[in-house]
Amino acid sequence: MVDTRYHVAGIGNAIVDVLVHADDALLETLKLSKGVMTLIDAAEAERIYDQLPPGIECSGGSAANTIVGIASLGGRAAYMGKVKDDQLGQVFGHDIRKAGVAFPTVAAVDGLTTARCFVLVTPDAQRTMLTYLGACVELTPDDVDEAVIASSQVTYLEGYLYDPPLAKRAFLKAADTAHKAGRLVSLSLSDPFCVDRHRAAFLDLVSSHVDILFANEAELTSLYQTDNFDDAVRQVRGHCRVAAITRGPKGSVVVTEDDVHVIAAEAGITVVDTTGAGDLYAAGFLFGFTQGRDLATSALLGGIAAGEVISHVGARPERPLTLVAAEKLGPIYSGSIA
Amino acid sequence: MVDTRYHVAGIGNAIVDVLVHADDALLETLKLSKGVMTLIDAAEAERIYDQLPPGIECSGGSAANTIVGIASLGGRAAYMGKVKDDQLGQVFGHDIRKAGVAFPTVAAVDGLTTARCFVLVTPDAQRTMLTYLGACVELTPDDVDEAVIASSQVTYLEGYLYDPPLAKRAFLKAADTAHKAGRLVSLSLSDPFCVDRHRAAFLDLVSSHVDILFANEAELTSLYQTDNFDDAVRQVRGHCRVAAITRGPKGSVVVTEDDVHVIAAEAGITVVDTTGAGDLYAAGFLFGFTQGRDLATSALLGGIAAGEVISHVGARPERPLTLVAAEKLGPIYSGSIA
Repeated sequence: MVDTRYHVAGIGNAIVDVLVHADDALLETLKLSKGVMTLIDAAEAERIYDQLPPGIECSGGSAANTIVGIASLGGRAAYMGKVKDDQLGQVFGHDIRKAGVAFPTVAAVDGLTTARCFVLVTPDAQRTMLTYLGACVELTPDDVDEAVIASSQVTYLEGYLYDPPLAKRAFLKAADTAHKAGRLVSLSLSDPFCVDRHRAAFLDLVSSHVDILFANEAELTSLYQTDNFDDAVRQVRGHCRVAAITRGPKGSVVVTEDDVHVIAAEAGITVVDTTGAGDLYAAGFLFGFTQGRDLATSALLGGIAAGEVISHVGARPERPLTLVAAEKLGPIYSGSIA
Repeated sequence: MVDTRYHVAGIGNAIVDVLVHADDALLETLKLSKGVMTLIDAAEAERIYDQLPPGIECSGGSAANTIVGIASLGGRAAYMGKVKDDQLGQVFGHDIRKAGVAFPTVAAVDGLTTARCFVLVTPDAQRTMLTYLGACVELTPDDVDEAVIASSQVTYLEGYLYDPPLAKRAFLKAADTAHKAGRLVSLSLSDPFCVDRHRAAFLDLVSSHVDILFANEAELTSLYQTDNFDDAVRQVRGHCRVAAITRGPKGSVVVTEDDVHVIAAEAGITVVDTTGAGDLYAAGFLFGFTQGRDLATSALLGGIAAGEVISHVGARPERPLTLVAAEKLGPIYSGSIA
């Protein structure tokens, strides 16, 4: 095995978020289901933007948020995702690099603009997302940096990569490269409707390519097409080495073939915006895991990172997570130990 | 006089802010004086951006922030300022229109990109700004919509317009159009170093073209080249009809030839980021003034609007100012009465 240069390498759709405050009436006008992610095309993006109130722009993207969270915890992290070399693409590249993440992907010069996601945050702190994939459809296997993957303890892939047609080939190449190098592969199921769109592929992935699975309750029950959470958990335990399942205010459950760990959510958090909660849970968990922590401690770190990101608007940490983790768990957690 | 369509029309440099958290060490590295606005060119903008941490993007521009504040208070408002038809220009146009402001200026198709301002917010809540003017240099007298100016009770101009060479001609055309239509002209001195750059012109403007002047202590003393605030106030009283001078936590002073009103700052505000404080003071004041309120009440509304914007990151209100004003002063202030 080559030397470990990165704790985690992530691949995902590289997106700039447009965050707006919305009320339930606006969701109704736009005919949106609260809490889910809907894909839109360029014309819809223009039409919908015209109906949104003033917003703020900030870098997002599910796996990108996770990778930034890992760097914020003190981990060494890399990210691959496609932007165009336009103003928003430059913002995305600046933000992820300045968060301390290696970002080797070359921006597209031609073609569609950098992806945007309209994030409608309602007063109940729920977020409803509309994503225009733009340049993300240009991510190809050539963008998978095999040297980076081979030198990363874990390669983290978002399920959303199955939406742009070519990206799934990049996904499979990355998973294959990681395993050939003796590394681990981790998948986030991303969204229950994303699971709906790609269920057969995801079931195959989970049983044959994924070592560490992240899902929330809705995604996991969607994967196994059951209403029963315990039933879904039973099924996933035989399918991958570790599954970390988030349950919102109920905390998380981490299961392996042999063990079940139930971890309470962070207490005392005033929830402002749940955008990025799952992404940052994965960040904390993977940081802990790649530092050699046990599964329960890794899940605790996941909850701490998620707790920070839901306490403010936006999907990336506002405070360095090294500090947040150190406040909660003591200084030993405030940086890289491996 | 034509009918009053707008309470206030503003003209200014149309800018997208890039907000970053910074510490004093970063200001030292970049050799910046805390609290002031420095102009930078495209090459410097690139070099400096590369040294800044991840940020968030949001629409800004001094007069634009004021005009958005007036609309947020329930006033009818228009804005003129030049962006390019690029991604950040589209963000600027979207945000100001969706804030309820008429924005007739046509975006430039060619030429420099939409202006950006790096706003470095330090832990003491001070902001230090670096502005790349970009497309703002394309604002010309042709962009002054005379019908809009003639039908606005007050035309509000920012001193920063004297930085791009052509914009000052747009400024003078607007002031002239307003006065010919029997309307009032208001000027913000913008920044003490901006006053330094254009002192002779500003002194002439204040004594011959300006009815309502906004300045903070540093700007006013810079204008009259004195260390003595009382001396500066004495001088300005003869020069324009109304001068509203902000003094940070000490509140504001509004003077005319005959009267002096001293108004305390809003109490109980936790100051997070002073960006936009002066802009929103002008918004509250001009909203009150154009509703026929007396000067002291107008200044009180200025303090309330400024108090909202300094309580969070960013230069535009997060909560509708109609609500904020109604909470402080009762429902009669929660909308347009004229």
